[in-house]
This record gives sequence, structure tokens and C-alpha cells, in this order.
Amino acid sequence: MITTKLSGQKGIVVWLLGLSGAGKSTIAQLLEQHLTLNGYFSIRLDGDALRETVNKGLGFSDDERAENIRRTAEMASLLCANNVITICSLITPLNRHRDIARNILGDNYHEVFVDCPLEVCVGRDVKGLYQQAFKKEIRNFTGIGSSFEAPAQPWLTLQAHNTTAQECTAKLYNAILPLITAEVAQPGTQSPDLAEMAYYTETARR
Amino acid sequence: MITTKLSGQKGIVVWLLGLSGAGKSTIAQLLEQHLTLNGYFSIRLDGDALRETVNKGLGFSDDERAENIRRTAEMASLLCANNVITICSLITPLNRHRDIARNILGDNYHEVFVDCPLEVCVGRDVKGLYQQAFKKEIRNFTGIGSSFEAPAQPWLTLQAHNTTAQECTAKLYNAILPLITAEVAQPGTQSPDLAEMAYYTETARR
Repeated sequence: MITTKLSGQKGIVVWLLGLSGAGKSTIAQLLEQHLTLNGYFSIRLDGDALRETVNKGLGFSDDERAENIRRTAEMASLLCANNVITICSLITPLNRHRDIARNILGDNYHEVFVDCPLEVCVGRDVKGLYQQAFKKEIRNFTGIGSSFEAPAQPWLTLQAHNTTAQECTAKLYNAILPLITAEVAQPGTQSPDLAEMAYYTETARR
Repeated sequence: MITTKLSGQKGIVVWLLGLSGAGKSTIAQLLEQHLTLNGYFSIRLDGDALRETVNKGLGFSDDERAENIRRTAEMASLLCANNVITICSLITPLNRHRDIARNILGDNYHEVFVDCPLEVCVGRDVKGLYQQAFKKEIRNFTGIGSSFEAPAQPWLTLQAHNTTAQECTAKLYNAILPLITAEVAQPGTQSPDLAEMAYYTETARR
């Protein structure tokens, strides 16, 4: 790994968890926008989106959720090793699921609980999923047919029911700012191999 | 998606394929180093490495190889959408496997055949895998117990048996350079939402 990748920033993983409808994806998007605006490079790994791509075919049993989270954490680990600020947003309902992410990511794991009472999420029901769950058209839906454990010691809690998504994002941005800021590498710290390679290719291109 | 992510570069996917021992990983590493040195941000997705992480548990049957390639292509697609130059190195033995990657990645897919005769790869046998395959300690090993189809129309072919890895990398770098260079966005193109958000957060931090 070359240390000058994305110099000026340090990769971390922000893991947003909470009930469906709590506001995880909205906060993740706003954080990404705000980081970009401030010159930081970030990538979002959204649970729902990944279920259409890398995690296609996985269902919602506890074990399949665990595998969904495992793969997402492994992707986040790779991105973080490349100095990318990685924003994951997944329900991550059980403590054992969070342990999977924590074990893979170690100190890079920053657990952010997007806290919103079930009744508020049900009232919002942006995607109409809670209604489907009540009618039993969806099984294993978190909070209805499947458990959600409140995290014991999250790194940060965002009260997503009585503050706006913008306020939550501002709080989160300010919390991660000291962690993602890195000294810009001084020139002259290139390895000789690389300098040699540059010379080589420049020559080849002439 | 915000268009100013990694301004100055455009994401593409470089898909290095070929036999085990042909030199895919070496060329991928050299390309990554050279891109970094020249101010481009890239991420490598290495087939062997991913089998220890995101693709853990997948074997080497045709179908499992297909799933391995599908997940890798989906990850590459996500990275590319974030403007990252993505360097994949996987054996990708069959045309149907390459079709999976091509279908997911569309115009971003750049197939690079790292061409090296089987007898040369067997002679190198850096990881001792060919010897294990001959002794039948490994089954389904590409080129021994499992087929490799030469690609019909790769985007680029690197002759990895009679040119050095450095020479192959220089050729590849020069080929992708026109594709990865983007105009740097002009200031003043921010969306109003983002400007508002920045104001908001600045205020909140005071």
C-alpha cells in the first residue's frame, strides 16, 4: 500500500445502524455530499442498494443478514485500507451482527446509532414496508416480525426523531472531522522503486 | 452522485485476466503504484485476496467462479460510479465469465489479456500451485483440470512471457491514460442544496 493515496485524509468506517425509516440512508447521503463539498473522498455502502448487487440473492434470516453484513464489512475494510471514508448504512439489527462488523474492522469501526422509536418509523413508513409487514406480506421485517436490539455502547447516537437529518449530519460530520484529517505527506518521501518506475515509463512514452 | 468526486480523473475498470502465474497481480500492483505516483486514485480488486474476504467460502466450480466474478464486477461498478480507477485481476477463465463482467460494467469494462503460455506459467510456478495440480492435490485448477479459453477480442493484450512486468505496465498505463483524464470541474458549479448545507454546518460548529 502506498501511503500517499488520498493524502490529506484518513480512512475510517462510519457504520449507521437503526430501524427501517429511521433516516440512515438520508444521513449517509447528506454526509457524503458534505464530505465531498469539503474536499474529502467518501464512498457509501447502502444495505438496500447492495442487496441488488454484491449481496443479491441473500434473504432476511438472521444468518443471511449476518452474511450481508460480513460482506459489507469486508468491502468497507478494503476501502478503508485505501484511505477512503466509508459510510455504511444497514439495519444491523442484532448485537451479534455488529460484532461481525467490529471484528472485521477493528479500530476503524465507528458505530452510529440512528435512534428513532418504532412508532415514529411506522408513522413515516416512506417505503410502505411497515404496512406490508403488518399485513404479513413481508416476513422477518425488523421491529415487526424480527428483533432489533438497541446497541449498548454506540460510538455516537443521533436522535433522529426530534432533530432534522441535517442536524444529525452536522453532528456526525463534526464528530468524525478530527479522525479523518491527516497531515499532507511531504514531497520527497516516494520510495525509490516508484521514482524509478516513473522514469522508466516516461522514457517508454517518448 | 456528485460530479466533483475525484475531479481530474474519470473512473474506468481495467479487468486483467489470464492463467495463474501469468503476471496479473504483479502488473495490477505496478499499475496502482504508477497511477498513485501520477496523482490518480485507484483501487485493486485481486481475485485471490477477495477469496479471503468478500468472496470467502466460494469454491472453484464454474458456477462458483461465476459468482466470484459477479460480485467482483458489482464492486467494481460501485467504485467506478464513484470515479475510482478500478483494477481487477482474476483468472476469469471462460467467455461466459467475461460476459458476466461485461454485462454488469458496460462501457466501463476494459478487458486486458495477460497472455502467457501455459508451459511458461508452469515453469514459473511461483506459488507451487501447478505442482499441486499435477499431483491432483488441487482439483479444477485452470489450465490443468479446468479450461481456459483465450479471449476472442480483448481490449488490450499484454505479452507477459517475452516482455517484463514493467514493460507491460507501461503499455497498459499509456493505453488507459486518455480514458482516465477528465477536465477539472470549474468552481461555482455546486448545487444550492450543498452550499446551504455547508452554511448550515459552519453555523452549527460555531
